[in-house]
Amino acid sequence: MRKFVGERAKRLIANNTIASVVKLNHHHTPCSPNYYSNRSHLRRLPSSLYSPISSYSIMASTPPVTVESLNPKVLKCEYAVRGEIVTVAQKLQQDLQENPGSHPFEEILYCNIGNPQHLGQKPITFFREVLALCDHPVLLDKNETMGLFSADSIKRASSILDQIPGRATGAYSHSQGIKGLRDTIAAGIEARDGFPADPNDIFLTDGASPGVHMMMQLLIRSENDGILCPIPQYPLYSASIALHGGTLVRYYLDEATGWGLEVSELKKQLEAAKEKGITVRALVAINPGNPTGQVLAEENQRQIVDFCKEEGLVLLADEVYQENIYAPDKKFHSFKKICRAMGYGEKDIPLVSFQSVSKGYHGECGKRGGYMEVTGFSSEVRQQFYKVASVNLCSNITGQILASLVMSPPKVGDESYDAYMSERDGILESLARRAKLRRCELQQSRGAMYLFPNIRLPDKAIKAAEDAKKAADAYYALRLLDATGVVVVPGSGFGQVPGSWHFRCTILPQEDKIPAIVSRLTDFHKQFMDEFHITYKAARYILWKL
Amino acid sequence: MRKFVGERAKRLIANNTIASVVKLNHHHTPCSPNYYSNRSHLRRLPSSLYSPISSYSIMASTPPVTVESLNPKVLKCEYAVRGEIVTVAQKLQQDLQENPGSHPFEEILYCNIGNPQHLGQKPITFFREVLALCDHPVLLDKNETMGLFSADSIKRASSILDQIPGRATGAYSHSQGIKGLRDTIAAGIEARDGFPADPNDIFLTDGASPGVHMMMQLLIRSENDGILCPIPQYPLYSASIALHGGTLVRYYLDEATGWGLEVSELKKQLEAAKEKGITVRALVAINPGNPTGQVLAEENQRQIVDFCKEEGLVLLADEVYQENIYAPDKKFHSFKKICRAMGYGEKDIPLVSFQSVSKGYHGECGKRGGYMEVTGFSSEVRQQFYKVASVNLCSNITGQILASLVMSPPKVGDESYDAYMSERDGILESLARRAKLRRCELQQSRGAMYLFPNIRLPDKAIKAAEDAKKAADAYYALRLLDATGVVVVPGSGFGQVPGSWHFRCTILPQEDKIPAIVSRLTDFHKQFMDEFHITYKAARYILWKL
Repeated sequence: MRKFVGERAKRLIANNTIASVVKLNHHHTPCSPNYYSNRSHLRRLPSSLYSPISSYSIMASTPPVTVESLNPKVLKCEYAVRGEIVTVAQKLQQDLQENPGSHPFEEILYCNIGNPQHLGQKPITFFREVLALCDHPVLLDKNETMGLFSADSIKRASSILDQIPGRATGAYSHSQGIKGLRDTIAAGIEARDGFPADPNDIFLTDGASPGVHMMMQLLIRSENDGILCPIPQYPLYSASIALHGGTLVRYYLDEATGWGLEVSELKKQLEAAKEKGITVRALVAINPGNPTGQVLAEENQRQIVDFCKEEGLVLLADEVYQENIYAPDKKFHSFKKICRAMGYGEKDIPLVSFQSVSKGYHGECGKRGGYMEVTGFSSEVRQQFYKVASVNLCSNITGQILASLVMSPPKVGDESYDAYMSERDGILESLARRAKLRRCELQQSRGAMYLFPNIRLPDKAIKAAEDAKKAADAYYALRLLDATGVVVVPGSGFGQVPGSWHFRCTILPQEDKIPAIVSRLTDFHKQFMDEFHITYKAARYILWKL
Repeated sequence: MRKFVGERAKRLIANNTIASVVKLNHHHTPCSPNYYSNRSHLRRLPSSLYSPISSYSIMASTPPVTVESLNPKVLKCEYAVRGEIVTVAQKLQQDLQENPGSHPFEEILYCNIGNPQHLGQKPITFFREVLALCDHPVLLDKNETMGLFSADSIKRASSILDQIPGRATGAYSHSQGIKGLRDTIAAGIEARDGFPADPNDIFLTDGASPGVHMMMQLLIRSENDGILCPIPQYPLYSASIALHGGTLVRYYLDEATGWGLEVSELKKQLEAAKEKGITVRALVAINPGNPTGQVLAEENQRQIVDFCKEEGLVLLADEVYQENIYAPDKKFHSFKKICRAMGYGEKDIPLVSFQSVSKGYHGECGKRGGYMEVTGFSSEVRQQFYKVASVNLCSNITGQILASLVMSPPKVGDESYDAYMSERDGILESLARRAKLRRCELQQSRGAMYLFPNIRLPDKAIKAAEDAKKAADAYYALRLLDATGVVVVPGSGFGQVPGSWHFRCTILPQEDKIPAIVSRLTDFHKQFMDEFHITYKAARYILWKL
């Protein structure tokens, strides 16, 4: 055994010298000669970013699978949230572990992704008690358990186990998820909206992403099918549309009005798509917005619903940030509630609402739980949804249980209630404080977990980025990472009005770390501007001021 | 609230009278006029199978989404394991709950799917202890925990938590899975095979299915790309190839030699595909076989490897039943071990090995854990794998942890070792006894979890099935379900030599239930044959004898 490992180690060292720089998130045609980055592309980037990341060797013989022979839809797909910047960050993190002090920062701060527990947020105790008991039900028969778990977590775990045939949390469930859990979720939706919800409309999923993929798979027949998506958008949508071979039909949110959604813009883009021969099948609305943090007004939501009704579009409502609203004058209204309050019944509007256990105050990203509520489709169409869900058998049971807990947390009188409320409010209040931390009014986050500041970059910086074959904001983000250890996502990964530049930064680092981060970002920005011969004071167009 | 619920109840009752019979697994062209079943198709099927299942209404207005406007790849996809028969079974189960005694059996026995814990198999204690502690790490700081958990489960959970940044089991991980867990899995593979394994080659997945989908998505560009699959096959493969728009290139396993795999057959089918203009990209080998239970001989595996090497095919090795071998003269050899033992290095053979926590002795289907080990691809191609994995962020952490436990169970000297071995061997020995329970030599299962008996049906039965617009074995399986409550999957869902008929039945019901099941199946078979005017004794062609 040791012999093999030794041999491998040698081989890996040898390979490292020839491996190319990982370049996942590109802005060039995959098949163009310049598709793979080489070092000349990285002129101006600090040397630490050159080092090879992959330990894999270049093939000696002609391999049967080359990049050129892969599915072109895969090559077209981009996913900035985990793109090049994260790969570089992982490399830097490894550097720091192996050579402490090798960089001007002590740790990498992952502000690229809404991953709260990674940045120190603690899970909700009640949720984890229930999960532990469901994972190991033998505990329910032991006396010591009473001393370790709250009475209501024991009761809840027992009642969940009773809903599972054979109390088997290790068995595949119904393809839509365990019926009793769907009952609980439907009751939670009814309590939230004041309108009925049917457990047969719920499809439990491994987070919201697989649900979105499933809908794209069902709706997209060819590149002539389009999906209306907000710009900026969460890149899951562009990635999923690319993977399924459809066309992304952009509608622009209006930055000047805090990323407002204008129905006139929807109509304009729909007509333009029709003229190109595109059949638009669905409209994606992300509310609260990602990456914008915008919260839609009720009147605006009604206009969107009417637009979908008139144009025969499926409304894909990404509502995963429904608990993350920080502006006191804003409130979440589900699109289903809006539809029903307008008098539209189940037969009138095909609507899919996505929810996730990853966001909210719970932030249980790693558990991969979520659901979609599917209304307004015929029985025959629904059977096709069921069939596609069946091919993957079911979503993970831990995530299913957690989705039911999120939609039915402890209630007044339960032993856990006070602790639960204190944990929940502590997290939400802290998030609200962090959302307000930036001084510039335009950049204040009203909802979700993100800031999406506008950065006006000097022409010389844009030119430097072009020389490095990078989008200007990607260049800025890579430089920011190298100088500060802070990972943000370039705005070009979300889409933006051409010529404008942004980045997305989560508000998730714990509060005690925020002052240091703000200071690091400010210093970097000043140095970056200085480097391109613009004095900090003269950069009066820079909207983003820390 | 109550008002809405009441209204819904009324509406649901009204809708039930017009809802059509669910028909998920069809054998007709989706767009043909007869695509949707009506009652005339079900002539000869018992009345209990007519009842509507869906509570959803037929649309009043023209909906924007119709079956005809869905992605035709979705319509083409079939997945027999959770097809019509399961929907009917769920309906019967509901009947039994609401009206006990309404059917000639007391419970539905799901032998359609390898779902051991659903049928009473208990999870491995050590695995569940570790999961509970990782779900609720606060337990590790409590004194009572020592009395409730084994010392090695506490130690293992602590060491797993130490491998996770911030000990956060609720955080998204690296897109390939937590690095420390991949280290453990790679070490487990090395110990199994005696050849090195690299943690960077491991992609943790939510069970084997998403890994298979990912490979199909990467490799299939159009219907001109083909994937060589065994027939009979696990219908995940045909479903996934259909969903990704490729062509299933069948190679037939030889029933007469216990479902042997002949390389001459591979060559024949590859040539035939080439003549039709199909580029074959990969070969699927399922070892041990599903649904056949066949275990490949080493020499046979070497031939398959050479065939893939010569023809430039990716070898997709479904090895999820590697622990499920019951014949004393059979042993599992991973394809990677075979390749390395033949002298092929990492650069020579593109190979993907799929493993799952759902099978083996553990049977943790609901946890959705698994991995693929990916070797023999260039760095650039691997980057595309990573990108696709990233779009779904990561697989669920509970499943990730479980995958590491399965590949690194307790060792001699650990407190849990004896209990673990006793639980594991108890399950495997019982499975081996169940695999031998059938008297007919040909049907004895050597591996996996299934029997795939051949049923020679009388012409009159085949005619009756045709009248009911069913495949003959689907008709048989529906009748079997209605008479006995036993759910099996028709062989037509897996593929079979035209004119032959089979069904797949798991060996998973607990041993004390087996005699009753055998007796129910025997009685049904006799009655079925009698009905079609063949006396039981005269049915000498029926290979399947209980």
